[in-house]
Amino acid sequence: MEKKETIFKMIKEHHKKTFEKAKKEGKMDLDFIPLCEHLTKTTEYFTSSCCAGRIALVGLNKKETKKESAFHRKWHKKVKFEEIKKGISSFEGEVLWLKQEPLILHLGTKTLNNSIKIIAICEKIGLKRAGIKVIKEGKYILEIIGNHNINMPVKEGKISINENYLKYVVKKCNQKFDKNKKTLKKLTIEIKKQIK
Amino acid sequence: MEKKETIFKMIKEHHKKTFEKAKKEGKMDLDFIPLCEHLTKTTEYFTSSCCAGRIALVGLNKKETKKESAFHRKWHKKVKFEEIKKGISSFEGEVLWLKQEPLILHLGTKTLNNSIKIIAICEKIGLKRAGIKVIKEGKYILEIIGNHNINMPVKEGKISINENYLKYVVKKCNQKFDKNKKTLKKLTIEIKKQIK
Repeated sequence: MEKKETIFKMIKEHHKKTFEKAKKEGKMDLDFIPLCEHLTKTTEYFTSSCCAGRIALVGLNKKETKKESAFHRKWHKKVKFEEIKKGISSFEGEVLWLKQEPLILHLGTKTLNNSIKIIAICEKIGLKRAGIKVIKEGKYILEIIGNHNINMPVKEGKISINENYLKYVVKKCNQKFDKNKKTLKKLTIEIKKQIK
Repeated sequence: MEKKETIFKMIKEHHKKTFEKAKKEGKMDLDFIPLCEHLTKTTEYFTSSCCAGRIALVGLNKKETKKESAFHRKWHKKVKFEEIKKGISSFEGEVLWLKQEPLILHLGTKTLNNSIKIIAICEKIGLKRAGIKVIKEGKYILEIIGNHNINMPVKEGKISINENYLKYVVKKCNQKFDKNKKTLKKLTIEIKKQIK
């Protein structure tokens, strides 16, 4: 067997185990399981990490360097206005951001041609942000990110978003969260159809 | 000369002409000119499109389908509170979003190895969103997108962001706009150093 072939098999096996462990321990986003499970059964594809989307309150320092950022609250589900309101009022750091983050998936495959196929699938269902990020002996890893997001500062010092408007924003976060789930369903269907 | 080689030369020449025409007509983002000009002089790289970042008010219908979206106002510079305020109050469509959009660059090259080099440069300067999006005979096109963005709904029906908070948000948009420019400078320096 070729060296590349062996390396790929090892990588795929490693990620299969990681996925199954995460699933067993309840650490997997339920909505991503059908897609990941399907790819586990293929011979030339695997998934290395994924998040089905979330709504979060993220605290940053004034310089807003990533290093200093920390989840103040996060939800892998739709949120209630009261949850967000409480999260904001209990924040005592420097700058607080409200984020509705879309799905993110790292999908690995054996060949460049397979990667092209995945990019075409993403384009077909309207996922614009899909590209090859890692190229190493025996593997190509694509990063696929959903289109829908909200990203806004909500609290800094004495400044804070007001209640009525926040109610509206929470509604929009939930709307986008749902849209994102629909995209993930479409992606799962299309991958099951085209990738064996 | 190989067929691939000929195709690449033609593509590179085409994009060089498009770039020079845009520059002459004042349609190029000034901040992107040094980087694009440098790549024009190389033999294995070109740029096919770019935007150095902008702040915009985008109108959408309630379903928020991309098809129906339209720039209500846009600025390729920092904005004044009054400009945004006027933009919001004059909007009569369904949903209005305020967006601070980061740099976006489509960079083409001849080989997969060159693409890997570009991704490594992006990683080095902290640009996480860089990947190969197009692979066709004779060319690889990478999409590079900045990290900094703001994306928030500001007006829908009777709901509208209030003035004090909007003032703060405008300040944050401008801060992020500046950060984005710094990233573009870093990218230009690093590409000039590593890509000949």
